[in-house]
Amino acid sequence: MTAPKIDVVGIGNALVDVLSKTDDAFLEAHRINKGSMTLIDELRAVELYDAMGPAVEVSGGSAGNTAAGVASLGGKAVFLGKVRDDQLGTIFTHDIRATGVGFDTPHATMGPATGRSMILVTPDAARSMNTYLGAAVEFGPDDVNEAQVEAAQVTYMEGYLWDSPSAKAAFLKAAGLAHGAGRKVSLTLSDPFLVDRYKEELKEFVTRHVDIVFANEEEVCGLFDAPDFDAALQEMRHLCDVAALTRSEKGAVIVSGQEVHVVDAAPVPEVVDTTGAGDLFAAGFLFGITNGYGLYDSGRIGAIAAAEVISHVGARPEQNLAELIAGQLGPAQAQRA
Amino acid sequence: MTAPKIDVVGIGNALVDVLSKTDDAFLEAHRINKGSMTLIDELRAVELYDAMGPAVEVSGGSAGNTAAGVASLGGKAVFLGKVRDDQLGTIFTHDIRATGVGFDTPHATMGPATGRSMILVTPDAARSMNTYLGAAVEFGPDDVNEAQVEAAQVTYMEGYLWDSPSAKAAFLKAAGLAHGAGRKVSLTLSDPFLVDRYKEELKEFVTRHVDIVFANEEEVCGLFDAPDFDAALQEMRHLCDVAALTRSEKGAVIVSGQEVHVVDAAPVPEVVDTTGAGDLFAAGFLFGITNGYGLYDSGRIGAIAAAEVISHVGARPEQNLAELIAGQLGPAQAQRA
Repeated sequence: MTAPKIDVVGIGNALVDVLSKTDDAFLEAHRINKGSMTLIDELRAVELYDAMGPAVEVSGGSAGNTAAGVASLGGKAVFLGKVRDDQLGTIFTHDIRATGVGFDTPHATMGPATGRSMILVTPDAARSMNTYLGAAVEFGPDDVNEAQVEAAQVTYMEGYLWDSPSAKAAFLKAAGLAHGAGRKVSLTLSDPFLVDRYKEELKEFVTRHVDIVFANEEEVCGLFDAPDFDAALQEMRHLCDVAALTRSEKGAVIVSGQEVHVVDAAPVPEVVDTTGAGDLFAAGFLFGITNGYGLYDSGRIGAIAAAEVISHVGARPEQNLAELIAGQLGPAQAQRA
Repeated sequence: MTAPKIDVVGIGNALVDVLSKTDDAFLEAHRINKGSMTLIDELRAVELYDAMGPAVEVSGGSAGNTAAGVASLGGKAVFLGKVRDDQLGTIFTHDIRATGVGFDTPHATMGPATGRSMILVTPDAARSMNTYLGAAVEFGPDDVNEAQVEAAQVTYMEGYLWDSPSAKAAFLKAAGLAHGAGRKVSLTLSDPFLVDRYKEELKEFVTRHVDIVFANEEEVCGLFDAPDFDAALQEMRHLCDVAALTRSEKGAVIVSGQEVHVVDAAPVPEVVDTTGAGDLFAAGFLFGITNGYGLYDSGRIGAIAAAEVISHVGARPEQNLAELIAGQLGPAQAQRA
């Protein structure tokens, strides 16, 4: 049997990030949930954009960032998501392809504009995201490329998509295809408010369909209404094969059955913008396990990739991650399990 | 008589910068003029965009950057320039207004898309600009807001516009209005290749219509086919009231009749991207002379503003320049001549 041609297929909201520096007073004045993601409609998007300062536009979207990270590490990644045939859609398409990610989901030719996330970064480097999904909600089961999902070692999906019924249907289809082909399914819980909205549904989906779960401390505690991280970890280990639980500067814990690894956070000279930290941890971890690394080393690759992305503005790597990893971890071949 | 309400009206190409890091090999492979600005058509824009790496979009355009700099210094600035009613036009409009600059030029509702400059930044921080003017070329005499030009202490125009016949007509109109109202007219020569293309026309325009000229060393030498900087400086002092000649890390020389000031470059911890250096020097200098500073101090403000903008990616200030100046030069009131 020939080796699979794709390491990771990422499915998520195709978004362009509109990044602007601000202060806490602005967040309070505009009733913005600090540190999390809030879905907004077009009217609110216009209102907020009018009020905020000058911005920088950079391609983003959680699973898109993860796919870009896998490619930067030297892995083979594909992204599935929906943009419109407008200028922001052109920007998104260019940027993700230019990182080496395959992206062929047909652009919408009518309906809402390409989605964007207005990300307000406060002096403490926290990011507060206000997302107008736009064309991204049009992503549906027909956009799931069967050949790509069946050829990918892991199909990775962002929980954010749970807000869209057609995307949820696409998830179920993708999970079915992946498992039918003997592949793995992975999910990130994405956001504590999202976990709150769909707690029971998400638990059921994970139990039935997901092999590898990513969550941060707040999300995993929320999923089980757990009193502390350890309690949540004990619940999570029964729900899926592998859980990669991230804890910001405290690093990450990887759990798989009886196996538990504690991974320290990688050093960062200065934390500038935490946007994309979780996405790039997932990129590093998924690159690791699809390229022969063990769970612990995969976690370390995730930590190094996350450290790179929080050291600058924007949620996609600026350095070549393959070189960065080689410098800190030794070349991939030598490290393979 | 009441004080004028506007310090600087800037007239220029309204552009969104598409910034991407690259290496010299890419510039050579794609026959790109390193360190200067090349006008490209739509076909070439698409070809180059397909070939280049992931990018960041930031509002730019030379005179737009200058207007943003004046506003960041606490001055009152207005920008005149043309975008289309598309997503990039919305981004340009938002960003310039969010810096505090007045911008009311009507958006084009048909014709080419909002212009953009694909800026390739090499590891030596040099920027090579490939500009598709798009809607910017539609700027014409009707877009010159008479009341604003007549109310502004200085009307500042970028030489880049000389490539467009209708913009050139707008220049002549604006210069006539400004002088008719007893105001000053300022021009930046913008680019050595541009100077080469229109040497005689530009000399005549400066002699007849311009009070304050900005040029870098290469541009001013090119204008007079001068063998060295000093020879060019001696020619220039006869052509206009004030010439502000910039020399990168060697600082700047301000000449006005018999008065000559040598201004050192302000220190920069690390030069990251030189895009906007000249634009922000002009911003600081024009803010200075329209706010009661002498020629030397105005040059120092220019040097400080230029140093800020080359310390990061993008051609508009990230720090509040008024605070930066106060820290390095003392508060404006105390320094006024």
